[in-house]
Amino acid sequence: MTKGRLEAFSDGVLAIIITIMVLELKVPEGSSWVDLKPIIPKFLAYIFSFIYIGIYWNNHHHMFQAVKKVNGSILWANLHLLFWLSLMPIATEWIGTTNFSKNPVAAYGIGLIMCAIAYTILETVIIKCEGENSKLKEAIHSRFKEYISIVLYVLGIATSFFYPYLAVGLYYMVALIWLIPDKRIEKSLKEN
Amino acid sequence: MTKGRLEAFSDGVLAIIITIMVLELKVPEGSSWVDLKPIIPKFLAYIFSFIYIGIYWNNHHHMFQAVKKVNGSILWANLHLLFWLSLMPIATEWIGTTNFSKNPVAAYGIGLIMCAIAYTILETVIIKCEGENSKLKEAIHSRFKEYISIVLYVLGIATSFFYPYLAVGLYYMVALIWLIPDKRIEKSLKEN
Amino acid sequence: MTKGRLEAFSDGVLAIIITIMVLELKVPEGSSWVDLKPIIPKFLAYIFSFIYIGIYWNNHHHMFQAVKKVNGSILWANLHLLFWLSLMPIATEWIGTTNFSKNPVAAYGIGLIMCAIAYTILETVIIKCEGENSKLKEAIHSRFKEYISIVLYVLGIATSFFYPYLAVGLYYMVALIWLIPDKRIEKSLKEN
Amino acid sequence: MTKGRLEAFSDGVLAIIITIMVLELKVPEGSSWVDLKPIIPKFLAYIFSFIYIGIYWNNHHHMFQAVKKVNGSILWANLHLLFWLSLMPIATEWIGTTNFSKNPVAAYGIGLIMCAIAYTILETVIIKCEGENSKLKEAIHSRFKEYISIVLYVLGIATSFFYPYLAVGLYYMVALIWLIPDKRIEKSLKEN
Repeated sequence: MTKGRLEAFSDGVLAIIITIMVLELKVPEGSSWVDLKPIIPKFLAYIFSFIYIGIYWNNHHHMFQAVKKVNGSILWANLHLLFWLSLMPIATEWIGTTNFSKNPVAAYGIGLIMCAIAYTILETVIIKCEGENSKLKEAIHSRFKEYISIVLYVLGIATSFFYPYLAVGLYYMVALIWLIPDKRIEKSLKEN
Repeated sequence: MTKGRLEAFSDGVLAIIITIMVLELKVPEGSSWVDLKPIIPKFLAYIFSFIYIGIYWNNHHHMFQAVKKVNGSILWANLHLLFWLSLMPIATEWIGTTNFSKNPVAAYGIGLIMCAIAYTILETVIIKCEGENSKLKEAIHSRFKEYISIVLYVLGIATSFFYPYLAVGLYYMVALIWLIPDKRIEKSLKEN
Repeated sequence: MTKGRLEAFSDGVLAIIITIMVLELKVPEGSSWVDLKPIIPKFLAYIFSFIYIGIYWNNHHHMFQAVKKVNGSILWANLHLLFWLSLMPIATEWIGTTNFSKNPVAAYGIGLIMCAIAYTILETVIIKCEGENSKLKEAIHSRFKEYISIVLYVLGIATSFFYPYLAVGLYYMVALIWLIPDKRIEKSLKEN
Repeated sequence: MTKGRLEAFSDGVLAIIITIMVLELKVPEGSSWVDLKPIIPKFLAYIFSFIYIGIYWNNHHHMFQAVKKVNGSILWANLHLLFWLSLMPIATEWIGTTNFSKNPVAAYGIGLIMCAIAYTILETVIIKCEGENSKLKEAIHSRFKEYISIVLYVLGIATSFFYPYLAVGLYYMVALIWLIPDKRIEKSLKEN
């Protein structure tokens, strides 16, 4: 089966996820600059989540460049990833409305860790389906980035109960690691 | 006519349906874990409907792999299916907000049965349009899965008035039947 | 320029328009069947508009089958059509919440007539851009369907101030005329 | 890497941005024409922003016609543009609900200027990535349109604190400059 529709559907879902978050930025009642104050934490949360969804889209895009055909397992592993990503807008709204309180920040971290696990499962399923000659397998020699991310998320969640802002900083570090889409895949694709 | 745009439009509608359901998961007022309690039934309903829309997308994807050209009848049969699927978010919200009460669960089942009928109509229209050499016809020898689903839905709707949770269990059984996209189509496509 | 992205963007906008209308079908507070009563007119309005958007999508799809290349004028004529179609959800909500009152029904008719005019403009712009050998020009010998639609809409709008339901009937007649996508285009494409 | 998915994702996000703005046009309570009065400024703001997003989509479409391959930098420059465009619905709502007050009109102008800067960055990144033989570089000899736009925006923002309607007029002038998609690209593509 061709991968075209899987990509189109994922693009659609990610485009909606990234855009509906903006609906939470409710417009202020008045027209003075001070009226914008209550939406500042929501706006920061929006920027943060926009970057995260952007990262997932970029890496999803890179990963499927190295995929030739899809099957039922890949379709479901992909839907599983989209499910966890679809919860990002709610988590974002929760940290935004509560001004980065400890529980919402922890919940956000749990959401991020589930997305990361779902992404790793998708990677594994693709490599399993493609077998020995998988371009993706070649491209991803080690899983270093995947493992360090999980560690940072766990640290972040634990930290969130004491210093929520520090926790957000740790989540942000994971984002920085993934900001640059997988050079390994770009390189591997060029060689072939 | 080519099938590309029909697939793109269907992907768009399904992507929106699957994502707007998450908008119903209104963020709690407070920031404690207890505040999440009222959204638990909504969240369960969301997971359930997410899986269902995922199943329809997967099977739609598989079905159209076996289709070469589309005409006006297929376009309308497809829109008819999308119409019933578009009601899923409301049905989901109703069972979520009423904590799986009997009438909403029955209404949800009616929605599911209408989707199943619309899907079967689409299948029939495609086979009719493609004629004797239809790959899809080859792939679907019997309609066993289609018929058993309708029976389980009817049972579920009847049950919902007495044991709503049991009814959801019956709907869930149909989901399990269809979770694995039609191997018949994958096999038939490989042979050709 | 290729028409691929124009089609993709239009599909996206139409998919969203058709789906956000369902958001207006607010879920009832209670769980009894009687609680569904207030959403019946909204539901009827939803079905009606769903069919209308479906008709526009089908005919848009057919029309662009006959188009080879697009330019700036076609892009804008297409956006102009999408603009008027994007107002359908509001018009739908207005007739739904006011239970098909005279002014909202007239406003709905004005919306429909603007869509019809925008569609005819798009047709004209495409034919002009493609020149003498335009497949679309061949396909559309007369503009009978276009003209009869405008007449029925005008009649409908005039009627809406006295008998709103009759007006809806007249709008419905236009829908029936266009329900079957342009056979002229299908035929013309086959011949070539 | 191919540009297909970048275009599809951008189309999706822009389609959603352009359509969710219509959700702000809340339907009036009553059914008389007078009830429509409060949504008139919102409607004007909607038309204005619809045209703006349309312009960005058209120019984005034209720009990527001249692009062959994309890399990580282009993906991020594109997401950066989408981020600023995603704020348009909120800015639109703010000017609509406050009836074109000075601060909201200034905020709207700041949003527009950020979009313009993000668009110029995207152009620069693409040209840098494509190198000397970039078709886009050939097509865009000078950056006159880009620079005059920034000047008009700055003038508009300054004006908005004294004459908000005049500021909107200045923003509108920029729209007029860009309404006609870049002929330079169309011409350059034809020559090749």
